[in-house]
Amino acid sequence: MKLDVFTHVFPRRFFDRMLEVAGELGDMGKRVRGLTTLYDLDRRFRVMDEFGDDYRQVLSLASPPIESYASPSQAVELARLANEGMAELVEKHRDRFPAFVAALPMNDVEAALRELERAAGELGARGVQLFTNVRGRPLDEPEFFPVFEALAERDLAIWLHPARGAGSSDYASEPKSRFEIWWTLGWPYETSAAMARLVFSRVFDRLPGLKVITHHMGGLVPYLEGRVAYGWDVLGERTTDEDYFALRASLEKRPFDYFKQNFYADTALFGARAATVCGLDFFGEDRVLFASDCPFDPEGGSLYPRLTIGILDGLEISDDARAKIYHRNAERLLKLEP
Amino acid sequence: MKLDVFTHVFPRRFFDRMLEVAGELGDMGKRVRGLTTLYDLDRRFRVMDEFGDDYRQVLSLASPPIESYASPSQAVELARLANEGMAELVEKHRDRFPAFVAALPMNDVEAALRELERAAGELGARGVQLFTNVRGRPLDEPEFFPVFEALAERDLAIWLHPARGAGSSDYASEPKSRFEIWWTLGWPYETSAAMARLVFSRVFDRLPGLKVITHHMGGLVPYLEGRVAYGWDVLGERTTDEDYFALRASLEKRPFDYFKQNFYADTALFGARAATVCGLDFFGEDRVLFASDCPFDPEGGSLYPRLTIGILDGLEISDDARAKIYHRNAERLLKLEP
Repeated sequence: MKLDVFTHVFPRRFFDRMLEVAGELGDMGKRVRGLTTLYDLDRRFRVMDEFGDDYRQVLSLASPPIESYASPSQAVELARLANEGMAELVEKHRDRFPAFVAALPMNDVEAALRELERAAGELGARGVQLFTNVRGRPLDEPEFFPVFEALAERDLAIWLHPARGAGSSDYASEPKSRFEIWWTLGWPYETSAAMARLVFSRVFDRLPGLKVITHHMGGLVPYLEGRVAYGWDVLGERTTDEDYFALRASLEKRPFDYFKQNFYADTALFGARAATVCGLDFFGEDRVLFASDCPFDPEGGSLYPRLTIGILDGLEISDDARAKIYHRNAERLLKLEP
Repeated sequence: MKLDVFTHVFPRRFFDRMLEVAGELGDMGKRVRGLTTLYDLDRRFRVMDEFGDDYRQVLSLASPPIESYASPSQAVELARLANEGMAELVEKHRDRFPAFVAALPMNDVEAALRELERAAGELGARGVQLFTNVRGRPLDEPEFFPVFEALAERDLAIWLHPARGAGSSDYASEPKSRFEIWWTLGWPYETSAAMARLVFSRVFDRLPGLKVITHHMGGLVPYLEGRVAYGWDVLGERTTDEDYFALRASLEKRPFDYFKQNFYADTALFGARAATVCGLDFFGEDRVLFASDCPFDPEGGSLYPRLTIGILDGLEISDDARAKIYHRNAERLLKLEP
């Protein structure tokens, strides 16, 4: 079995309402409208069939984050439509889509908590997708902590997806980005910045059981392993206006160890073989999950699964390790029967 | 021979004048003042001696960029002091420091061109260090093009060093960075953003012979190889307010090929073995140069050379490839006798 844990979809009723609410969706809208496999189920099945009967997808909503284009009340409505639509796809096509992860209206935290209850309870969501910032606000702001708390309590993993920042913080691939640097380089940067924020705001010290799956193999962290290790060992030596020495002393472990031990990562590296080896070396075979980011590729859905499967099949690892990456780690996190 | 091509120094007279001009230098000053091996030659020699007689360093000025704390006229004076000081170190200790690369006062381009002439002509600089932004302004702004032109004409390579951005562009690890994310993740991001700017502003189409050595193994590019390749193949599909399709059509090669063929990279990855393999896979044995970033490490200079040499010695590559990385590629770029 090959369980592609990070793939994206627009359930039809959600899609129609999204376009009503958001109009053209700006830059991201241009991209998602052209990708018919996001909302046309027949085309999607045709893509999936290329990879055989044992290829399955965990569904999450396609970006951009709902709250980036919708008011709080619209976001609640859209999140409900999204989760109901994904639940229906799972219900009808469980052989193809064994699970979905919920979308939350993060611009209204109380409503997000209610939708989480409903999606995980009534609709059977097996995790949630969070974006790396909420309208430019970092995830470690205290307002969002109840969401992490609820997820830890329910033992639901987070699918951490990058989102364009707002130019005012570490989530800053905006606003004057040229040449789509905000996407190619910015998104993985946002992902790793969000990881760091969670670590240094001590979210894992407070919620040691919290599970976070980082899209695109940890963003940049495995490649920057040396900086993450030795660079953050001297946290505070580059800062004059805050006491990071005290923060460092208060952490329960070495900063590096959080990045290594408190995150999962997926293989959505778009055909980068050496990077996959590097990421797997960093996170280890128990924390890496197969994902392709389908259908976001220049062919409309089949290129990235094909490249990713080619890389994973060719890795010099044990069959046991390969089975963990292809499905067993995911089954554990999603609480699916093997 | 092991030629460590990216190491940093503060020549003594430069250092004293820098502190007069800049005072405490803010966050970065805290770090550099504590690193005595930057300006105390005896301590530096003691560190270097650990790695044997065949270990040598190419000198460049330590960060921050001069123009970040000095007025244009002060920057000219400081660049002159820096280059004279480094030339003197090379002159007196050629067995340890076979070459230096010049510092330029980039907040006055005319003066930078004059100082380049002087440093490369009279003082014997074998390259220049440029930072990834000039007070937050990207390197591909037309004002800076004459510098690239002069470097291409003289066949002098650029040592491309990251610098903290200014919150207003892709060089945006500022201003509200927390937890020193601007350093750990931000610097490699800035490096790759600068590479992308140079590529898409067609600097390499106009100056095909330009040589750029990216510090820290290309920043993020090798790890993000898949995004750089397939992501930028569809440049324009995520943008509504500029015509990047026309830009893409006007480029002389596939965007990916510039990243692969027009850059060099150094091994300053601070002990990250898997990342070194990944970076070497991307750039190839003819474009990777040994460097440690000495003396910027938690031990004050010996840790990163030791870790880096350990990794390079252990790589499963031919002796010929290892010799290229340790010194032959550098000798070619620096025009040193083997």
